[in-house]
Amino acid sequence: MSQINYKSQQEIIMKIVSCNDIFAEDCLLMGGDSQRRLVFVDGFFHRCGQWKDRIYKYFAERNINAKIVPIECSEDTKDLETLLCILGHMERFNLLRRSEPVIAIGGGVLTDMVGFASSMFRRGVPYIKVPTTLLGMVDAGLGAKTSINHFDRRNRLGSYFPPILTCIDRQFLQTLDPKEITVAMGEIIKIAVIKDAELFEFIEKNLECVLENKFVCEAGKKIIDRSSALMMEELEPNLWEKDLERVVDFGHTFSPIPEMKSLTDTGATPLAHGEAVALDVLFSSKLSVMRGMLTKEEYNRILNLVEKSKLPVSHKYFDQAWILWDSLMDATRHRNGKQNAPVPTSIGRSIFLLDITLEEIERVIKYESHN
Amino acid sequence: MSQINYKSQQEIIMKIVSCNDIFAEDCLLMGGDSQRRLVFVDGFFHRCGQWKDRIYKYFAERNINAKIVPIECSEDTKDLETLLCILGHMERFNLLRRSEPVIAIGGGVLTDMVGFASSMFRRGVPYIKVPTTLLGMVDAGLGAKTSINHFDRRNRLGSYFPPILTCIDRQFLQTLDPKEITVAMGEIIKIAVIKDAELFEFIEKNLECVLENKFVCEAGKKIIDRSSALMMEELEPNLWEKDLERVVDFGHTFSPIPEMKSLTDTGATPLAHGEAVALDVLFSSKLSVMRGMLTKEEYNRILNLVEKSKLPVSHKYFDQAWILWDSLMDATRHRNGKQNAPVPTSIGRSIFLLDITLEEIERVIKYESHN
Repeated sequence: MSQINYKSQQEIIMKIVSCNDIFAEDCLLMGGDSQRRLVFVDGFFHRCGQWKDRIYKYFAERNINAKIVPIECSEDTKDLETLLCILGHMERFNLLRRSEPVIAIGGGVLTDMVGFASSMFRRGVPYIKVPTTLLGMVDAGLGAKTSINHFDRRNRLGSYFPPILTCIDRQFLQTLDPKEITVAMGEIIKIAVIKDAELFEFIEKNLECVLENKFVCEAGKKIIDRSSALMMEELEPNLWEKDLERVVDFGHTFSPIPEMKSLTDTGATPLAHGEAVALDVLFSSKLSVMRGMLTKEEYNRILNLVEKSKLPVSHKYFDQAWILWDSLMDATRHRNGKQNAPVPTSIGRSIFLLDITLEEIERVIKYESHN
Repeated sequence: MSQINYKSQQEIIMKIVSCNDIFAEDCLLMGGDSQRRLVFVDGFFHRCGQWKDRIYKYFAERNINAKIVPIECSEDTKDLETLLCILGHMERFNLLRRSEPVIAIGGGVLTDMVGFASSMFRRGVPYIKVPTTLLGMVDAGLGAKTSINHFDRRNRLGSYFPPILTCIDRQFLQTLDPKEITVAMGEIIKIAVIKDAELFEFIEKNLECVLENKFVCEAGKKIIDRSSALMMEELEPNLWEKDLERVVDFGHTFSPIPEMKSLTDTGATPLAHGEAVALDVLFSSKLSVMRGMLTKEEYNRILNLVEKSKLPVSHKYFDQAWILWDSLMDATRHRNGKQNAPVPTSIGRSIFLLDITLEEIERVIKYESHN
């Protein structure tokens, strides 16, 4: 037997641009000298007359022949069918392989799907992400992960395929449904609890003001900038997730199955992603309290912030030990057989648990009712 | 406007193992300590009782609980439906993310599809390729490219996702249909013409013998080793195809559309991949002769080797300028707007052409009939 090893290296540069008015900048045209662009726009966003008009004008003023395609987006439509529809548009556009970056303007569902389609069309064409939701700006719009839901599982199929550019423009938040601000608070609280006590305190102090202004204020800018920087701090050295101990998995251990299940079960309140994450943040924190790590006072601060953000603090699935156990088991397979469940030991600090049992989950559920 | 750049690096190591009897080695179990394996086997290969029995025995002897799944493979079934079937098996197997490498034993169609499925399931699970065809050993089984056919286009969807290991065992060639040896000759002649005059001469001298022995002889081993080394020489520094000037694209400029079209047109002789490549090799070489680069003598040596390999030297689509032009145009989009068509200037040397016209294609077609 003889063996030859071949080595290849790939360097990825992810550019994140923050601006006050993306339509006054040329950055959407970065990465290609073609006079054409294929632009996918979140259906909801496209219906906001204000933005729709500015998107069309943007390309017209720059003499770019843009094909603008609205895509209806929700967890329900984040599926193979919509993916094939996006791919069909790429095919009919006769998309060039390198010099016509695809542009995705919308929430995390849209950018995840366009990213996945871009990763596979001709084995990869460049794309640009323009998150229009708060969740997109602090979480889904960052990094390299693309996906669709499949086999009734959240993000079961996908790839690591970084955009050549992510453009963050907070003006889009003005027209956002208040619910969308709330769900993003789930991820923002998550990253603060697990990594940054100072950010957590800053949010406590400024929550009312930023919610009222939909983050279009100085405090809002500071929270977004800090949250996205914390996220990138984790992603940059571990973009392909070689290391499966990821603190950003906090809130994503017990939540995936409840989230997916709630969308099809007519007897359950449907959970948006950030809501499911917040419920997991609370559950994992309570588990930490019961293990004598996190203090009750800290737990109550977290609970308080979740409540004030108008996120749910209870849900019937989080009272059903088997559902939480199934979710932990699937997360464990995703983490290659280790639970690697991040829990806070204090606000801003964390450890990974490897030994959670069904019995412990049952005790945490019961603890809730006595608390 | 402010901009932050984040940099990530990925290093890939591709191991290629050559052995005389893979079933006597443990290498199929590399890369994971789990006692389970999911194994996809080419339907044709699975029906060869001889190999099927040895595969089952291999895992049984090593106490590995192997789920062995035969997949029917042809260009016709290299599609989304089969991909979803493979993904469904991964889901039902509850495949771990890292320590249960998927094993693909079969021709290029199988390894391309299993590779694509592996790249997207949970955003990537490790896999091992075991090419059972000559084409797989010198071309499709090497490198990182995965794919399915879609939109009636060859390999339109796919990814770059290298296997953790490729195992080459020439004993599989014994039971190969002679036609499979022939089609692989298309790629072998391609790489020799464009990169290695010495290999070309060696093939001329040993062709009869290697065809008779289905490459299970010293000369066959030398040709396979040299062809795969030449291929890896091109792939290693350019695994993600950042550089779109690729000499290995020789034979892949005019052939993709004729190949795909021939499979559905009942009035045309269906073309296997290697046959289409050989026709393109001849067409591109003739074009080079007409430009005064390649000599007629060299062209005749190439033609002679193609003929003796029992590959076709003519096909109705290669007499239709518009079809060849369409194929060139699609290849040009794939090469981001540049033709980058490799043609030999002598046997073993090449340049890239950027300026082929429809008229020139017409002249090359006519030249054939006068030659």
